Amino acid sequence: MKKYLIILSGGMDSVTLLHDWEADIALAVTFDYGSNHAKREIAMAAANCEKLGIEHIVIPLAFMHDYFKSSLISGAEAIPEGHYADENMKSTVVPFRNGIMLAVAVGLAESRGLEGVLIANHAGDHTIYPDCRPEFIDAVRRSALAGTFSRVEIISPYCGITKTQIAARGAEIGVDYALTYSCYKGSEKHCGKCGTCVERKEAFRDAGVQDPTDYED
Amino acid sequence: MKKYLIILSGGMDSVTLLHDWEADIALAVTFDYGSNHAKREIAMAAANCEKLGIEHIVIPLAFMHDYFKSSLISGAEAIPEGHYADENMKSTVVPFRNGIMLAVAVGLAESRGLEGVLIANHAGDHTIYPDCRPEFIDAVRRSALAGTFSRVEIISPYCGITKTQIAARGAEIGVDYALTYSCYKGSEKHCGKCGTCVERKEAFRDAGVQDPTDYED
Repeated sequence: MKKYLIILSGGMDSVTLLHDWEADIALAVTFDYGSNHAKREIAMAAANCEKLGIEHIVIPLAFMHDYFKSSLISGAEAIPEGHYADENMKSTVVPFRNGIMLAVAVGLAESRGLEGVLIANHAGDHTIYPDCRPEFIDAVRRSALAGTFSRVEIISPYCGITKTQIAARGAEIGVDYALTYSCYKGSEKHCGKCGTCVERKEAFRDAGVQDPTDYED
Repeated sequence: MKKYLIILSGGMDSVTLLHDWEADIALAVTFDYGSNHAKREIAMAAANCEKLGIEHIVIPLAFMHDYFKSSLISGAEAIPEGHYADENMKSTVVPFRNGIMLAVAVGLAESRGLEGVLIANHAGDHTIYPDCRPEFIDAVRRSALAGTFSRVEIISPYCGITKTQIAARGAEIGVDYALTYSCYKGSEKHCGKCGTCVERKEAFRDAGVQDPTDYED
């Protein structure tokens, strides 16, 4: 019996996790919070699920676009360029995004009778995003165990590894990274300059994995 | 400076908390998850905020109606009758509802530069709802502190008291309970028979507070 739900954005990390834990995944959920790159990410999430025969649903969180402040949901021109770990990248933070996605996923897992929720946060996220850090994941995991009848688990298999190690793992299990999208600007081609594009390039380069991405620069 | 956001349903508990902590509340948020009684509860939430001059927003969580299993969102005829603490009342549980509302509220509080989130869960909720218990509140509180830059607090002032004590507190500070709605069936008049109506009656009776509710039975 497949027993997990995965939070799937359509980026490199969660698409790798989808393939990595495929045998145990019953449902993939993509959250549409109105980000600049939502449309392209969602298309990639759907394509991977179709390929693997995994049920995929998209949950709209329109209120985040209406009420939350973040350059990630304010249009491409607001996205800063530079390295992912730089201070100016903080404007791309969507407040408590992982907290919100995990909470919805936990409720949905309990509704479906599933045992746990998979999330693909990784060690490289920790410097910028507080809701990617191990202490956050640990606390929210305990809140899910305490707050559900069926004691839904939260599992974060990549929490201790880097994006480079994720890319290496993906190459090993045959993930097609042409079917992933990362750029925060959301244009047809990856810009190659925003934090997440820079991080994407570095991960392929450092892992010695061929980068199939067609960058604008 | 007012510094808190309150999760306000429009029922007795959160309306009492709204009046109780009024001086420190900058924003009241009602979540519309498509429950049978949403329309009447929201109207009560709005009426109390207007009276107190507190900004009020309604955040639709339509996906809960579409994807979650609960008699609370399946129509009035699915609502069991009897005492709130009875086993059959479990069907009214919306999986991880407080987890979801708290996560969205925490993100919104950080977006607005507010220090904390108020929630009116109370000791009487604990028997049925896992996401009302102190160990849940404690874990989710730590997840909010760890998962936000500004270390948003979660405050649950009624976690250790009963609904009867809430009614007594409300009477003391002059809350008009005619401006609250509880019934899970969602008709114009309170049915008087569902778990939350029975609990409402008992709270007024045990607190020695006059019950202004016009029950159907």
